[in-house]
Amino acid sequence: MGTEQRILFANESFYQAFSAGDFEAMEGLWSTGQPLVCIHPGQQPLVIRDEIMTSWKAILELEATQGISCFEPRVSLYGSVALVVCYEILGENQLIATNGFVEEKGIWTMIHHQAGPSLSSELENGSRD
Amino acid sequence: MGTEQRILFANESFYQAFSAGDFEAMEGLWSTGQPLVCIHPGQQPLVIRDEIMTSWKAILELEATQGISCFEPRVSLYGSVALVVCYEILGENQLIATNGFVEEKGIWTMIHHQAGPSLSSELENGSRD
Repeated sequence: MGTEQRILFANESFYQAFSAGDFEAMEGLWSTGQPLVCIHPGQQPLVIRDEIMTSWKAILELEATQGISCFEPRVSLYGSVALVVCYEILGENQLIATNGFVEEKGIWTMIHHQAGPSLSSELENGSRD
Repeated sequence: MGTEQRILFANESFYQAFSAGDFEAMEGLWSTGQPLVCIHPGQQPLVIRDEIMTSWKAILELEATQGISCFEPRVSLYGSVALVVCYEILGENQLIATNGFVEEKGIWTMIHHQAGPSLSSELENGSRD
């Protein structure tokens, strides 16, 4: 698997954990050795790992976030750091997210997540199908 | 100047250009050799340099965005890549932003910007003064 594919796989693993409400999988995706930032929509940034995990635990217990999916992921690569921008689709709602990953011992681990509302996109204009 | 100070300086330069409506300064901050992503609030991600610059030209001509300021910038460093998370204050409105920088020839150049609404923060709770 090439570098971009491995990064997209890590990004997809994030949405699989998110969609399935699988906290253990979510917890395992985040780096244990790097600085972390997590910004849920409209929320303050979280930078402490325990606080990030507490936030995910609460979110993953909500039925409302189950079934979230990721569309049009796009990788930007900067050596051993990657930023993946994608749309998040959850029912009628669409968000735009950036997910950051760092390669550690051959594994792309999560270091950044920021999601916010997306008011307009090609998806809404009919290119989703 | 240490690494973190130089990154904060680059971040501050971004807000100075933004606040002053200085397109030339803004244009000069963005990397010319790296993949770029720019996500204005509620908008689709832009990844082509020319399109990013066209978007900034339009934004910087708006009087409404002049005077924007950055609060509580926080640097996360991953080798030659840095992510700065901060609040953006514009009149009554508060946003949360991530700005990404890559070190190129000793200069921290911009590669990422994502801003979205921030519904709650310590700033709103009175810690701004």
